[in-house]
Amino acid sequence: MKLKSIPGGVTAAKGFRASGVAAGIKVRGKRDLALIYSQSPAVAAGMLTTNQLAAAPIRCCKTIFKRGKAQAIIANSGNANACTGIQGMIDAQGMAQAAAKALSLDPRMMLVASTGVIGRPLPIRKILEGIPSAVTHLNAHGSHAAAEAIMTTDLVPKEYAVEFSVEGAPVRIGGIAKGSGMIHPTMATMFAFLTTDAAITLPSLRVAVKQAVAHSFNSITVDGDMSTNDIVAVLANGRAGNKALQAGDAGLGAFVRALTHVCEHLAKMIVKDGEGATHLITVDVRGAHSAHEARKAARGVAGSLLVKTMVTGRDPNWGRVAAAIGASGAHLNPGKLTISLGGITVFQHGQPVRFNPLHLKRVLDHPETLISIHLGAGASQGHVWTCNLTEGYIHINAKYTT
Amino acid sequence: MKLKSIPGGVTAAKGFRASGVAAGIKVRGKRDLALIYSQSPAVAAGMLTTNQLAAAPIRCCKTIFKRGKAQAIIANSGNANACTGIQGMIDAQGMAQAAAKALSLDPRMMLVASTGVIGRPLPIRKILEGIPSAVTHLNAHGSHAAAEAIMTTDLVPKEYAVEFSVEGAPVRIGGIAKGSGMIHPTMATMFAFLTTDAAITLPSLRVAVKQAVAHSFNSITVDGDMSTNDIVAVLANGRAGNKALQAGDAGLGAFVRALTHVCEHLAKMIVKDGEGATHLITVDVRGAHSAHEARKAARGVAGSLLVKTMVTGRDPNWGRVAAAIGASGAHLNPGKLTISLGGITVFQHGQPVRFNPLHLKRVLDHPETLISIHLGAGASQGHVWTCNLTEGYIHINAKYTT
Repeated sequence: MKLKSIPGGVTAAKGFRASGVAAGIKVRGKRDLALIYSQSPAVAAGMLTTNQLAAAPIRCCKTIFKRGKAQAIIANSGNANACTGIQGMIDAQGMAQAAAKALSLDPRMMLVASTGVIGRPLPIRKILEGIPSAVTHLNAHGSHAAAEAIMTTDLVPKEYAVEFSVEGAPVRIGGIAKGSGMIHPTMATMFAFLTTDAAITLPSLRVAVKQAVAHSFNSITVDGDMSTNDIVAVLANGRAGNKALQAGDAGLGAFVRALTHVCEHLAKMIVKDGEGATHLITVDVRGAHSAHEARKAARGVAGSLLVKTMVTGRDPNWGRVAAAIGASGAHLNPGKLTISLGGITVFQHGQPVRFNPLHLKRVLDHPETLISIHLGAGASQGHVWTCNLTEGYIHINAKYTT
Repeated sequence: MKLKSIPGGVTAAKGFRASGVAAGIKVRGKRDLALIYSQSPAVAAGMLTTNQLAAAPIRCCKTIFKRGKAQAIIANSGNANACTGIQGMIDAQGMAQAAAKALSLDPRMMLVASTGVIGRPLPIRKILEGIPSAVTHLNAHGSHAAAEAIMTTDLVPKEYAVEFSVEGAPVRIGGIAKGSGMIHPTMATMFAFLTTDAAITLPSLRVAVKQAVAHSFNSITVDGDMSTNDIVAVLANGRAGNKALQAGDAGLGAFVRALTHVCEHLAKMIVKDGEGATHLITVDVRGAHSAHEARKAARGVAGSLLVKTMVTGRDPNWGRVAAAIGASGAHLNPGKLTISLGGITVFQHGQPVRFNPLHLKRVLDHPETLISIHLGAGASQGHVWTCNLTEGYIHINAKYTT
């Protein structure tokens, strides 16, 4: 399959429009209200946070994903509308209804999302006042503005799109995403809104999203915190004109790979832009008893503050990687365990290996760090992406609301 | 029961001697070799790390705790003797044997422990050369020197002791401990060496240690990392002259409470001295379905980097506490969930409460922060102690071996 990276982000696929406007939720006139719109009804699937205190908008989306149809997404940054009680639910529904009305849509076709501070009343009046402007600004090049409007502590807007072919028909998948703190699997605390002009059945889209998310947004961690507001949503409006993809189609495999690729790309962008991060760390685990065990070991290492600060300090203190593997609970064979950093083997078959610390230091100078682990306990593999932990993270998070 | 805090630490109990000398493992002539000695054989029980890559000395101690008898502990800082392969095992045994020989003990009576950098060969020659000096320096006031000799990134040595009475006989329990990074339950990454002159049967000592550790060292977390070298060891030499405590004795309850008290005190000292820490945070959970669920919620909150940095920034962003509870997986009733910080209720029965952010900021200025949570799901409770996360932690850990 040939995948071509193309511009356009969440509006790259046919028939999608987007906008991002400033509704006054954030200070200094920053964009804080995003709207994504499909010119025709779309099949909709997604994944939502499993946090027991899921925000009000998340509960609205749950109902919509059950039906599997949607035509637009309204999302604000600056306020999470989480832990806001009954008023929060009223506000989330009000926000969705107002946006639906402005677009002449059935409110049941409107996804709604919020991100920002938890526990403060949603400034619903500002949002209602901003919606007409968001509708007016909808356009085929609105992806960047929408990506900006969902940013919280993100330093860069995140968008990506690809084109590939399904039985001769060009199909596009694109999306926008936001991080960048509270990032942790199941799921990564984030938004990812994806659009595609592929025609696909609802059951197949659901399977595709599940697979793509497992290998991307559920394979990243920044700080181990899971938010109340995580959402991945995919709208497929069928405008590419292909025969609707369904189970058993060769084209479905291509679609899943392309969707996974886009999600992986956006997921890595989130990690690279992790709060205070300067390094992308890939923890690659092989020789595991099962894929689940591989992931467990990888998460253990990726979640270790001592490993993250080791990378920050370019400190060849690989013993912390070993300690994190041992603590992860993943099944391993101590006599066969092998660890390498950036291709330099430091521990082999349970024995430390002599290496030049200067070489290792040089490897850690590179902004992408690869930690490879062989557990010696099987033939399965898995990986997790994370970022290093710096004083910048503390600085950002000690002052978030003040 | 009346507990009196007394000086003397690990040498407070009758018949115990200790020393701490500089063997040259650490730089600049700092103490790095500790020896604790009972003048008569003692009943020994303890708990060891569950890290699958447990260090060589941990594996030596496992055998000794199975027998339940010991008379001395030799411990070094500056090198963990973990991930050191077969040579590591030879070195750990060599260290124990040399110390036993110098004290004319059966090597099976010698506990051994190491802490420091993982994955580097133990400088066994320096240790062997240091042992005679450690033996020579053994004395009844050696607790402080021993506490210093087990420090790694700890800023202050940790020692504590109490006296209480068992059926008229004065009994003492004392100990030394070290932290201060890689601190996490099951178990906290640390050393705690405790001594008592109580007479107690091995089965009762084992039960007492398990209970005391659950409520102390297994209720603290600094950074979520579990080390390869954690050990809690308790030696009871019976010199207090009481009738040996056993199951069913009223005195055993007093002993367990006193041991728990000493362990809690040392555990809190570890957290307060957490790397870069400026605040002791107590997460107190009530209304849980079970004690296990209470602990789960408390650990979720105590482990959240966003909660820790919120305290660092004196930032009244309590939504992070809610998000961490929701993410913890602990069973809760969202409509009854209540959260207060330093006695100020911020979220009650699932609804945010109006409060003066300046009052909350003032509460967070206090070096001890209480986070109280009611899950509304039962009648059980639990707590976890942790510390805040500061730029100091990053600074310390980015430069640990270099």
